[in-house]
Amino acid sequence: MLTLYSFGPGANSMKPLLTMFEKQLAFTPRLLNPAVFEHHEDWFKKINPRGQVPALDHDGHIITESTVICEYLEDVFPDSGASLRPADPVARAEMRVWTKWVDEYFCWCVSTIGWERRISQMARAISAEEFEERVKRIPVPEQQKKWRDARNGFPKEVLDEEMRKIGISVKKLEARLAESEWLAGEQYTLADICNFAIANGMQNGFAELVNAADTPNLVQWIARINARPACQEMFAKIQRERAPEPKAEANAAA
Amino acid sequence: MLTLYSFGPGANSMKPLLTMFEKQLAFTPRLLNPAVFEHHEDWFKKINPRGQVPALDHDGHIITESTVICEYLEDVFPDSGASLRPADPVARAEMRVWTKWVDEYFCWCVSTIGWERRISQMARAISAEEFEERVKRIPVPEQQKKWRDARNGFPKEVLDEEMRKIGISVKKLEARLAESEWLAGEQYTLADICNFAIANGMQNGFAELVNAADTPNLVQWIARINARPACQEMFAKIQRERAPEPKAEANAAA
Repeated sequence: MLTLYSFGPGANSMKPLLTMFEKQLAFTPRLLNPAVFEHHEDWFKKINPRGQVPALDHDGHIITESTVICEYLEDVFPDSGASLRPADPVARAEMRVWTKWVDEYFCWCVSTIGWERRISQMARAISAEEFEERVKRIPVPEQQKKWRDARNGFPKEVLDEEMRKIGISVKKLEARLAESEWLAGEQYTLADICNFAIANGMQNGFAELVNAADTPNLVQWIARINARPACQEMFAKIQRERAPEPKAEANAAA
Repeated sequence: MLTLYSFGPGANSMKPLLTMFEKQLAFTPRLLNPAVFEHHEDWFKKINPRGQVPALDHDGHIITESTVICEYLEDVFPDSGASLRPADPVARAEMRVWTKWVDEYFCWCVSTIGWERRISQMARAISAEEFEERVKRIPVPEQQKKWRDARNGFPKEVLDEEMRKIGISVKKLEARLAESEWLAGEQYTLADICNFAIANGMQNGFAELVNAADTPNLVQWIARINARPACQEMFAKIQRERAPEPKAEANAAA
């Protein structure tokens, strides 16, 4: 039995979500509400002590870290649905260079701007006392700092530096997609899924960088993935949690 | 044919080096000299455009990124020498959480302190003009900044923050090794190799944190890996490049 704890189809949570839809795996999606710090509640820290989504429960085994979950699903269900990891070891290494780059570079710069624009509202929507109560429950010190930065507003030099890195990231993706249909070569792989999880929506949120005139190949690649049946099914079935208050019970979608 | 470009058995370069000795693979070790920015020379940027070691040449295919190279060697030579990746997918995921953690957290904080202590001397051993000439050859902007910081001295608040993270890292390793002989469970894996590549030598460089009294399990684990025949062979055969001037020809050790 598979249960995926996530925030729904965006950012790191989208990586295993889209992978599971591409692989046509039956699973229970369990959406957590970041607006009420649900991922820092004790019940969830019993599942992932770091208090982070996504996390996969497979027959009682807990697998954490979005990219690791994606590789795990390929390890366990190689023949189910789409094959998302090249059989050729050279292409597989190329795939991993791209998934690693997301985790070490691309996701962080986009994340900071996303936090400044959206999470800051959640952090400011509650009183200072309530906020400090909730921050105390966060098990990872760096995440505590990120929440405080979001409430206070990230320093301008941090935001400038992150925007510089986003510019580099977008150019890098565009250059690669100008020479190759998919990031790791001829096959649609976890490299595409993991980068798409971050890049999708940048045509809106970062329209000055990602648009048909400046990054035609990146825009077409985003459209190509959105048009895949698995992606359409994911967006239709899984609603990203945005509600300001927690629900009484687990959202058992799909 | 296998050729490994590296700085020798330390930090990220050690990951594939030790993996290749553990797997008893015949290869040509090609040592580059960081003191003269050899990895930023044009001949090497033709091999890895990012100007970074380690890089593996396997029959003309170039594989980059230390952790990706290790997984590649397991993909291509699963039955050669030691098996360094668990067959069980859950343990394999556990292994990847640990190798990922090295790449995203542990290696960076240790690296900054290492740069402050050692690379800064290299960066200051040449004139300002020569230094700027060499920095221009570095293809990755973040690496240019790191070299400049090394020459100028990293800001104290950066060093303090990195030392804080090293303290957290050491505690995390000690806690895990108190409950398990190897990081990913019962088997010695790439998780151990990739963490050892960073942790080995901390008993000297960070003796106030890593010592028999405070971190007995970490110290024993470091000793256990050092005692392995593959590790002893690696240190005996591969000398880390420290010379202030480049050699006339490739160091064809082993």
